[in-house]
Amino acid sequence: MHAFDRDTRVQRLAPGRWQGEVSDAWNVGTIPNGGYLLALMMSAVSAELPHPDPLAVTAYYVRRATAGARVEIPVEVVAGGRTTSTAAAALVEDGEERARLLATYTDLAAARGPTSVTGSPPSLPSPEACVSSPGGPVLMEVQKRFEYRLSPATAGAAAGESAAQAEIGGWIRFADGRQPDLHSLALFADAFMPAVLNLGRFGWIPTLQLTVYFRARPQPGWLLGWFRSRFVVDGYLEEDGELWDSAGKLVAMSRQLARVLT
Amino acid sequence: MHAFDRDTRVQRLAPGRWQGEVSDAWNVGTIPNGGYLLALMMSAVSAELPHPDPLAVTAYYVRRATAGARVEIPVEVVAGGRTTSTAAAALVEDGEERARLLATYTDLAAARGPTSVTGSPPSLPSPEACVSSPGGPVLMEVQKRFEYRLSPATAGAAAGESAAQAEIGGWIRFADGRQPDLHSLALFADAFMPAVLNLGRFGWIPTLQLTVYFRARPQPGWLLGWFRSRFVVDGYLEEDGELWDSAGKLVAMSRQLARVLT
Repeated sequence: MHAFDRDTRVQRLAPGRWQGEVSDAWNVGTIPNGGYLLALMMSAVSAELPHPDPLAVTAYYVRRATAGARVEIPVEVVAGGRTTSTAAAALVEDGEERARLLATYTDLAAARGPTSVTGSPPSLPSPEACVSSPGGPVLMEVQKRFEYRLSPATAGAAAGESAAQAEIGGWIRFADGRQPDLHSLALFADAFMPAVLNLGRFGWIPTLQLTVYFRARPQPGWLLGWFRSRFVVDGYLEEDGELWDSAGKLVAMSRQLARVLT
Repeated sequence: MHAFDRDTRVQRLAPGRWQGEVSDAWNVGTIPNGGYLLALMMSAVSAELPHPDPLAVTAYYVRRATAGARVEIPVEVVAGGRTTSTAAAALVEDGEERARLLATYTDLAAARGPTSVTGSPPSLPSPEACVSSPGGPVLMEVQKRFEYRLSPATAGAAAGESAAQAEIGGWIRFADGRQPDLHSLALFADAFMPAVLNLGRFGWIPTLQLTVYFRARPQPGWLLGWFRSRFVVDGYLEEDGELWDSAGKLVAMSRQLARVLT
């Protein structure tokens, strides 16, 4: 079993009540990665909703979760229709909520309607011509779960340089060969070093809120991720991300709100 | 009292239980505007949380609400700390949830931390040199609550033209002279015609999810709004928005997920 699947397993305790364990394999420093916690909660939500594919999920992180903790994940189905269904969930550790989730699921294969795409993937050299590093001064535990091939244009922080733009992008895949799917895109959306770290050495960038929009089921192979923060203001920032699959199709968009602690 | 304040009033029924009325003054066709419902729920959330300013709010719209309906708004405080507090809320009509909200509040005046801004407002002629129309083939009720000065570059749909980009932008303010504040930015984020209507004549663009990030308290005067959809795929689209105040400062970012029904 691949690491992602092992560490996002949940067990059903009762109708609408699930249990899981927060692995320490996805830590940033000593804190579990927000995208990982999102994926863990989604395991329980997926099991409760009739539609197979996440369409939009939003997590609000309200207290730190503890690596290694056993957690409960209550899931409440808010509404269900023919096309979409929506649930609320939470991550509860020691009786205290650590994160709250809203999620709408659908069947993307059954989606019908107009298509008009004007966005295009960032232009990037092949993985072989990119930088084999996650960037940043310290290798985080979560970064060991992936292979990175950073765009040379945004890999400056890996070499201790400061950039003019808070921007990072490159190729990414699981280190253990697991192929991407919609579920794991929630994690890939938070698996790059925070783009703001390209601007300087900040101490800690806690995620307050993360929303992922799932646009297509990814093809096997490398994903191309691109993330940037255009407005860092008084210690708050947005980070906008796009994930493209190996066929050049947009598979997810993300936006997170984070704080910059110096 | 201005229309916005009148129509987002709520009354406390009990601790954590509020009541309001869905006005028909903010309709798109016969359906209440999503940004208006968001602002209505925020009235109850604001009253329950200790921090004064919204920082991020996310609404999932699960069933249509009815203009004219009396609704209940239960609010649950999820967590509160020194810097931020978070609540969940819902819009309940006839015992059925119509929308679910997550919201984190803070005190933006007390925010401290690094600032680095690389984004800039779209370049646009003065309000006097723009197009005095909300765009689109039909004047919606909600559009009567605002004055619009559309960018000539994106006002094509008003003249029945099709554009290459799903993009709309321009100046906006309340028609009755009310000045913008953080609360009303939730509504301004959904007050322009859907950008996708610049691509063609679609029947209905229901919002499934709307997230607004509040970045600064707006100065009085016109707001500058800019909205675009880059990925319309199989009838699903994201619409990204920015709102800038009269001093040229970014005051809100928004993203919504919507469907295109033909």
